[in-house]
Amino acid sequence: MTDQSVAKWDVYEASFSGPAEGNPFIDVAFEADFSQNSRKVRVPGFYDGNGVYKIRFMPDNEGAWSFVTKSATPALDGKTGNFTVTAARKGNHGPVSVANKFHFAYADGTPFLSFGTTCYAWTHQPLSEQQKTLDTLKAARFNKMRMGVFPKDYPYNVNEPLHDVYQRGADGKLDFDRPNPESFRHFENQVAALGELGIEADIIMLHPYDRWGYCDMSPEQDYRYFAYLTARLAAYRNVWWSLANEYDFLLDTKPMAQWDRYFHIIEENDPYNHLRSIHNGDPAANYDHRKPWVSHVCIQHWDVKRTGEWREAYGKPVVNDEPEYEGNIIQSWGNISAQELTHRFWITTLRGGYAGHGETFSHPEDLIWWAKGGELRGEAWKRIGYLRDLLEQDATHGLEPLNKDGTFPWNRISGSRDGDVTWIYFGEHQPVIWAGGLPQDDRKYEADIIDTWNMTVTPAKIVSAPENHPTRHGAVLRQRKPDAAFAVELPGKPYLALRVRPLD
Amino acid sequence: MTDQSVAKWDVYEASFSGPAEGNPFIDVAFEADFSQNSRKVRVPGFYDGNGVYKIRFMPDNEGAWSFVTKSATPALDGKTGNFTVTAARKGNHGPVSVANKFHFAYADGTPFLSFGTTCYAWTHQPLSEQQKTLDTLKAARFNKMRMGVFPKDYPYNVNEPLHDVYQRGADGKLDFDRPNPESFRHFENQVAALGELGIEADIIMLHPYDRWGYCDMSPEQDYRYFAYLTARLAAYRNVWWSLANEYDFLLDTKPMAQWDRYFHIIEENDPYNHLRSIHNGDPAANYDHRKPWVSHVCIQHWDVKRTGEWREAYGKPVVNDEPEYEGNIIQSWGNISAQELTHRFWITTLRGGYAGHGETFSHPEDLIWWAKGGELRGEAWKRIGYLRDLLEQDATHGLEPLNKDGTFPWNRISGSRDGDVTWIYFGEHQPVIWAGGLPQDDRKYEADIIDTWNMTVTPAKIVSAPENHPTRHGAVLRQRKPDAAFAVELPGKPYLALRVRPLD
Repeated sequence: MTDQSVAKWDVYEASFSGPAEGNPFIDVAFEADFSQNSRKVRVPGFYDGNGVYKIRFMPDNEGAWSFVTKSATPALDGKTGNFTVTAARKGNHGPVSVANKFHFAYADGTPFLSFGTTCYAWTHQPLSEQQKTLDTLKAARFNKMRMGVFPKDYPYNVNEPLHDVYQRGADGKLDFDRPNPESFRHFENQVAALGELGIEADIIMLHPYDRWGYCDMSPEQDYRYFAYLTARLAAYRNVWWSLANEYDFLLDTKPMAQWDRYFHIIEENDPYNHLRSIHNGDPAANYDHRKPWVSHVCIQHWDVKRTGEWREAYGKPVVNDEPEYEGNIIQSWGNISAQELTHRFWITTLRGGYAGHGETFSHPEDLIWWAKGGELRGEAWKRIGYLRDLLEQDATHGLEPLNKDGTFPWNRISGSRDGDVTWIYFGEHQPVIWAGGLPQDDRKYEADIIDTWNMTVTPAKIVSAPENHPTRHGAVLRQRKPDAAFAVELPGKPYLALRVRPLD
Repeated sequence: MTDQSVAKWDVYEASFSGPAEGNPFIDVAFEADFSQNSRKVRVPGFYDGNGVYKIRFMPDNEGAWSFVTKSATPALDGKTGNFTVTAARKGNHGPVSVANKFHFAYADGTPFLSFGTTCYAWTHQPLSEQQKTLDTLKAARFNKMRMGVFPKDYPYNVNEPLHDVYQRGADGKLDFDRPNPESFRHFENQVAALGELGIEADIIMLHPYDRWGYCDMSPEQDYRYFAYLTARLAAYRNVWWSLANEYDFLLDTKPMAQWDRYFHIIEENDPYNHLRSIHNGDPAANYDHRKPWVSHVCIQHWDVKRTGEWREAYGKPVVNDEPEYEGNIIQSWGNISAQELTHRFWITTLRGGYAGHGETFSHPEDLIWWAKGGELRGEAWKRIGYLRDLLEQDATHGLEPLNKDGTFPWNRISGSRDGDVTWIYFGEHQPVIWAGGLPQDDRKYEADIIDTWNMTVTPAKIVSAPENHPTRHGAVLRQRKPDAAFAVELPGKPYLALRVRPLD
């Protein structure tokens, strides 16, 4: 008997009554096996306060499902349920995972080209500001949001959070053995709200910007926190796990083995294998992203022409979430020009990586997008949206660099191909003619010049490829025969890109 | 008895008649000891054709000097002479050598801040073009010129040279056992002409861009060539030895030991210890500049924020002679914007290195500055001259990075100090207030904002340094207490620099 229905990749939730005495967060454990025919999926449950226990499940297949709970606590053991999973709602493509080694795709196969932004503490701002953030996101073209679970204490971030993430005891102190369900409920509502906007929530589980004591939880409290968060949130299709922001600034109290263990706990409690990454502070302190529990590389680095090095080093998708932010504050990670951030997006993307956006413009009331959300005040976000729109027109496999080992000229300029569409970004380079990397088969092609700042596409004139100069020494390396059957004329100004597509 | 006089650091030359039969270039050797009291300087002589032998000497001390020749050839043995060395001519500061580990100075102690340009084959162009080059240099502010001995065969370089560098035999073929003295005389006249303009001649002894056979000389012929060139040119105060351009593109025929030997031959024949370097093609193929015969690092690399890495790796002055050229040709090393090249000069310089200029604008007759000289057509050269003028106002020791290990924020922006003058270049960064790296003693300072593109200096408003934010975690690394007693306000736009000088 089917008593409920839920769409594929939406959240199915079941609630149960259980013990409220003692500390159920620690004392009580329960889980369920969700089944379809002989297939079983183990799903951990969680305590939501006031004697209410919940279990959430994201079905990945249509049809009849059932579940049965397991617990040492009799009230939560052997509970069963049935439900029907209907077709996915329009616009729900499922969770994102790694595709084609260096790229991402939704579960339904749609390529996911990551164009993220950052509002670390937006869910801890006044509700009116949070609504403003959602309204802004609706009008922008970002599809990933980096956001922390804990509130933030940092320059320009001195206000108290909307909720404590843990409950306060009689002494008024935070009790790190008792999560505050109200805070988590609010957080997951905002994760869901992002999902409705087509935005992945890149959830930052720990960070060092703290005055409340969240950083000082014991290892056991941390482990329970990771399990609790995972149990609550894994059923949201748009969740990505980011273990920390600038994890290396926490290494003094949380040694490396602890970070490995956090990854394992997520793996143990996330039936859907959501993406998992970890973000560094010091450019020399990258976590070893080769470890098998890391799904993709999260990096903070300004030198975006090195994107190929990171792909090569880790063999996974590279997301450079902080190629520095557009803004004008005193901190050097937060004061590059809009032109420069746009430039870094193009370079990163056309070297087969993904870049992240943030805005840090000084504001009299410290309303800065990068931490609090609200309103965008810069210029880069429009160009980033334009880049996304352009790329999505032709995306199939993901952009692969024209020359994977980065030799001339692809160490200087950026070029890649996805299927039979070729992209070249010249940036600070301004040739008046170009031939390198263009297709050299017998098909007919069209070429377009993209002004990355003014957001225009103009057809390029196709001409004969320049002849190779017949020198003897160094000819192979220095006077590469143009690897193209044709060339294109360019206007000889910086910040242009070229798109070449087959006509037939 | 004194029969001649020469100014200090000018060229004293003596000629002798000797055998003209056979091949004097190979058969005859002679040298001289130049003496002042008990001090002796060994100087190699050379054959200048037509039975004429010459010896050249650059005296480095005023007063009476004498010499006596030595040779197995009786006509060249035991010849003596006396001369008086007078004070250096105005503007002649002597040869340049390494000073303060990472910098350069003339022999009289004047700091030499290298601002070089490149005209590889300018001495092989028609004489009217060569005069144009000298006229252009007179109006520009470059003080170093990279120039090859051999002619150049390369895209945009297909004309025959003014002279063969070696004599042609009866069969019309070049005889690599017989240098062409006419060619060398012309070359050294142009080296001297540069000297009169205050320009160092960075002489490229080998390069791979060849259709005449110069690249195919045997090791023995190469060794004789290095000795001959050194004997002819070492007495010119403004000579720097650059063993090759893109030496690694010649490694197929000239293995590494041969390159080491070239260095040794120069050391054996250059009594003045002129600067010695070697230039790479592939960014991964740097010669090991730690070898003791290398005086400074010559590098070709676009990623100029890595200047500190090269200083650290080699412990010698870093001259990035090809941070890519301003231009618009199809080759990616030769088509960056004027803005970008100016930017790269500021970054390199304010990280304690030196950058080099070149211009590669497409021209209907292939008259391109980078190889042929002639006229400058770009915009960067003016800004580079402006940078030189600014720095020379206060130069004493040389610019040393504010943070030698390149940690935050000096990995992102560029800052350095020379004596008590502080320089910061923000580039693509655009803070509205700045405090990092400013002096924190009790002296009074003035601060100037430099618009590096528009070439203006504007006094900056000095304000209180922002307070440190009192967070616990990550505070040391992330919220550096401003290491300054004050801050300056900035207009919040890119490509600005800051100069801070004491008022008292």
